[in-house]
Amino acid sequence: MNEFQLIQHYFKQAALSFPNKNVIQSIGDDCAELDLLDNHTLHISIDTLVEDVHFPKHANPYDIAARALCVSLSDLAAAGASPIAFTLAITLPKIDADWLSEFSNGLAYIAQKFQCPLIGGDTTKGDALIITIQVHGQCPRGASLKRSGACVGHKVYVSDVLGEGAGALKQVLASPKNSEGLAQQYFYPLPKIEYGIGLRNKASSCLDVSDGLVQDLNHICTASQVGMNVYSENIPLSDLLIKTVGKEAGLQFALSGGDDYQLAYTAQNCDQGICIGEVVVGDQVLVDGAVPSAKGFQHF
Amino acid sequence: MNEFQLIQHYFKQAALSFPNKNVIQSIGDDCAELDLLDNHTLHISIDTLVEDVHFPKHANPYDIAARALCVSLSDLAAAGASPIAFTLAITLPKIDADWLSEFSNGLAYIAQKFQCPLIGGDTTKGDALIITIQVHGQCPRGASLKRSGACVGHKVYVSDVLGEGAGALKQVLASPKNSEGLAQQYFYPLPKIEYGIGLRNKASSCLDVSDGLVQDLNHICTASQVGMNVYSENIPLSDLLIKTVGKEAGLQFALSGGDDYQLAYTAQNCDQGICIGEVVVGDQVLVDGAVPSAKGFQHF
Repeated sequence: MNEFQLIQHYFKQAALSFPNKNVIQSIGDDCAELDLLDNHTLHISIDTLVEDVHFPKHANPYDIAARALCVSLSDLAAAGASPIAFTLAITLPKIDADWLSEFSNGLAYIAQKFQCPLIGGDTTKGDALIITIQVHGQCPRGASLKRSGACVGHKVYVSDVLGEGAGALKQVLASPKNSEGLAQQYFYPLPKIEYGIGLRNKASSCLDVSDGLVQDLNHICTASQVGMNVYSENIPLSDLLIKTVGKEAGLQFALSGGDDYQLAYTAQNCDQGICIGEVVVGDQVLVDGAVPSAKGFQHF
Repeated sequence: MNEFQLIQHYFKQAALSFPNKNVIQSIGDDCAELDLLDNHTLHISIDTLVEDVHFPKHANPYDIAARALCVSLSDLAAAGASPIAFTLAITLPKIDADWLSEFSNGLAYIAQKFQCPLIGGDTTKGDALIITIQVHGQCPRGASLKRSGACVGHKVYVSDVLGEGAGALKQVLASPKNSEGLAQQYFYPLPKIEYGIGLRNKASSCLDVSDGLVQDLNHICTASQVGMNVYSENIPLSDLLIKTVGKEAGLQFALSGGDDYQLAYTAQNCDQGICIGEVVVGDQVLVDGAVPSAKGFQHF
């Protein structure tokens, strides 16, 4: 099977590379072509997942694919953008028909769920499995959410429970083919697309929690030139997480573990989400009044 | 140096991540944000270059970067699109300050030449150097060039001499740090952006020659449901190529070598380029009346 047959067979399938009103040209030409809604701007984000760094190599290819697309789409959610389409650059050690079939089915599952078809890509041969996905979304001009914009006096919110992604890691590494229980949040961190759209004109700043709450909120602090007081007792943890790792470890996973893909945002007052603190004068996040010691995920 | 410092230092530099009228949000948020000109559509292409597959690992990082961005931009040229901006997902074995500095300078050289700034990306750690670039361009709605559209009776053209990229490979592998002579075409295949824009409303089909002329023209044949007669005596070869490898080997490089990044296109009659044959009834490219034996570059 050559590259063109591989693309045709696994990636150009109708369940994955389906048409939508924004796609003029999909897989099969030198460029894909997209059209935006009137008075909308384009939002893009590119993310790479490396085997045994960002996912266990021996996990189910279906789960790996789902995770890869969810993680990328989460950046669109953070911007309040609606998905249009995605591209995939995949480096493969070899062509394994079963693996590719499952992988493309996992992509298709998330692509359909969020109406975000595959419209182009590149397949290359390399020693390790590396997955790069770029997502494309649109948002009415001026309505998108950014890291800047938080103001002193605003409150700090998160969209839902934190810590499960990191809390799942032990199980995921021990049994990479098990995507149930806590591992479901690790492999299927469903992007908060509708939630993010709901925050347009409400949130003053927003991002998705990928590297740990404190490290990520510090990005808002830097971009907005503010500080934050966060109260650990307000940080939402799931019963499953507390039952599995205990409350103390669960809180640490929430503060610095990463892999949550919930939205964290600020607003003057918001009817969505869980308030965990407030924006104050300063330049960093304090948890219960102190600089937290644990760092978030370090990429190098 | 952590990921954020690396991005700040090497990739957010003014020479590389410069503003332009299409960029609303560049590096530094969950998404980059782009605005298109009125009545224009977005054209995108993503390409991955793997060390020692698509470039020699020990080449100058400046040259590697230039080649990577040129190769991606070439797809915009093939669509007749104007560059807007690009994203970079780079997997690095380690952080090497000198290497990154040269690499980002090489990107900046091409980015400025084609007014296409870096607006986002991802940096990850992996065993091999892998560079994925996605380019974004715009074109007036309906004016872009595609592989489909060639009609029987049209002529087949190429933009300039072929075979130099493949002809350079021996030198490039033997002396990867030498980017002069034939190697200049290998490392600096300057995308034919203005040329592609000039073909809007003239060419009936177009692509860039990346995998060898015959294999690539066959993509036009398939997409347009036509055949082609190409005449080897019309295929333009440079004096430098002929002097270096001889005419016969030069022709083989042109037909099946790849790495040219010239445009190949069809038109009823065109005042640009070199006519090398004609579109006929059929389903594939014939060279001097016969099916050519040599295949183009195989990705797997």
